[in-house]
Amino acid sequence: MTRYKATISYDGHGFAGFQRQPHARSVQEEIEKTLTRINKGQSVVVHGAGRTDSGVHALGQVIHFDLPEERDEEKLRFALDTQTPEDIDFIRVERVTEDFHSRYNKHSKTYEFLVDIGRPKNPMMRHYATHYPYPLDISLMQETIKRLEGTHDFTGFTASGTSVEDKVRTITEASLVFDSDRNFLVFTFSGNGFLYKQIRNMVGTLLKIGNKRMPVEQLERILAEKDRHLAGPTAAPNGLYLKEIHYEE
Amino acid sequence: MTRYKATISYDGHGFAGFQRQPHARSVQEEIEKTLTRINKGQSVVVHGAGRTDSGVHALGQVIHFDLPEERDEEKLRFALDTQTPEDIDFIRVERVTEDFHSRYNKHSKTYEFLVDIGRPKNPMMRHYATHYPYPLDISLMQETIKRLEGTHDFTGFTASGTSVEDKVRTITEASLVFDSDRNFLVFTFSGNGFLYKQIRNMVGTLLKIGNKRMPVEQLERILAEKDRHLAGPTAAPNGLYLKEIHYEE
Repeated sequence: MTRYKATISYDGHGFAGFQRQPHARSVQEEIEKTLTRINKGQSVVVHGAGRTDSGVHALGQVIHFDLPEERDEEKLRFALDTQTPEDIDFIRVERVTEDFHSRYNKHSKTYEFLVDIGRPKNPMMRHYATHYPYPLDISLMQETIKRLEGTHDFTGFTASGTSVEDKVRTITEASLVFDSDRNFLVFTFSGNGFLYKQIRNMVGTLLKIGNKRMPVEQLERILAEKDRHLAGPTAAPNGLYLKEIHYEE
Repeated sequence: MTRYKATISYDGHGFAGFQRQPHARSVQEEIEKTLTRINKGQSVVVHGAGRTDSGVHALGQVIHFDLPEERDEEKLRFALDTQTPEDIDFIRVERVTEDFHSRYNKHSKTYEFLVDIGRPKNPMMRHYATHYPYPLDISLMQETIKRLEGTHDFTGFTASGTSVEDKVRTITEASLVFDSDRNFLVFTFSGNGFLYKQIRNMVGTLLKIGNKRMPVEQLERILAEKDRHLAGPTAAPNGLYLKEIHYEE
């Protein structure tokens, strides 16, 4: 048995999310179908580092799977890239040791969130950025986003009813850049793990602050009081990208 | 009667082209349907500056149409923007004099052509850039593209069987930029008019030259001998954008 690690990208628009589920198209199932075909009909299970939600994109998701024999990495990458549907691409395939696990090996993740602030939106980007055509104080948002960096209990930014008990996470980078060519806001968040809907809730809150419908100080109240009702609305999934996963050596 | 000029953008992926045609979805028909509804059921005809082909996008197409009464420009823009399907956007609406004609008034057009040279491609851009994963000498292409500038007979770059007799056109700008962030080539062409499939044929030829499967000198031969068979293949429509139309005063 040989274990393979693969770095993949996909267009989340046509998927109900990464994870396999009944009666809905998932990234995991499409890749498992292709791998099983490549593996002469013997089923192959795929494990992903992150479970992206319906509509969320990936530029650098990491998965792993096992195959009975050793294969050439580039040939396997090419076969998977061309035989999976056109909304999934295989960037890299590497043989790894059997103790590698895409999800449980220590890693940090980087997410990007794109907001199209053009009036009107760019129609080519309607599935690939969230449209927000309202006034925004971008420098205020750039200052405010920095307060999310560091180690905090992010309970106030996660969806209620999450089963995870420990909601303390560390954000190593939280930044906001205005891309004037495209009229886009580009949010970047890196950290050792994010809670369910955490990034979309942080973005929704920052947009509300930038639009002056929420005071800046409320950000610290959300962290301190751990109350989801204080936070802004959940931003739509179409702007969110799982950009990169970095494993510790 | 009041004449309106509108600047629109659209995602060409879901359209059989700009122009109305039986049994196929067109940009013209969608806008005419919406305008007719706004005009209380009385039919309205839309004229476009350029007839983009199936799959070709627009960032700044210009159209004109007449309505019986005078309307507020911004209210009309907003109504059209929100009532047309989500793959069409209205950027600007202006009242113009009755002698304005989007197609016949003298104008220059700028087109952009995006080529994704990433290996593999960006799956989010598969309908919005043409994928070309082969080796390319970009500086050679940047030099060669300049030879297209100026006034030439472009017969060798148009589709055979075109009804237009005079195939002499002037290209005021032809340039190629490498966008290293996205791993994209961005071709830009400006001029007083382009022949049917001219830009896609010029891009296909430049890619063949950049890939060293065609000598640089052949570009001048195509212009001189006016022979379509000398040119490269027609590049796919998904990379082409009608970017801007500039009317002379």
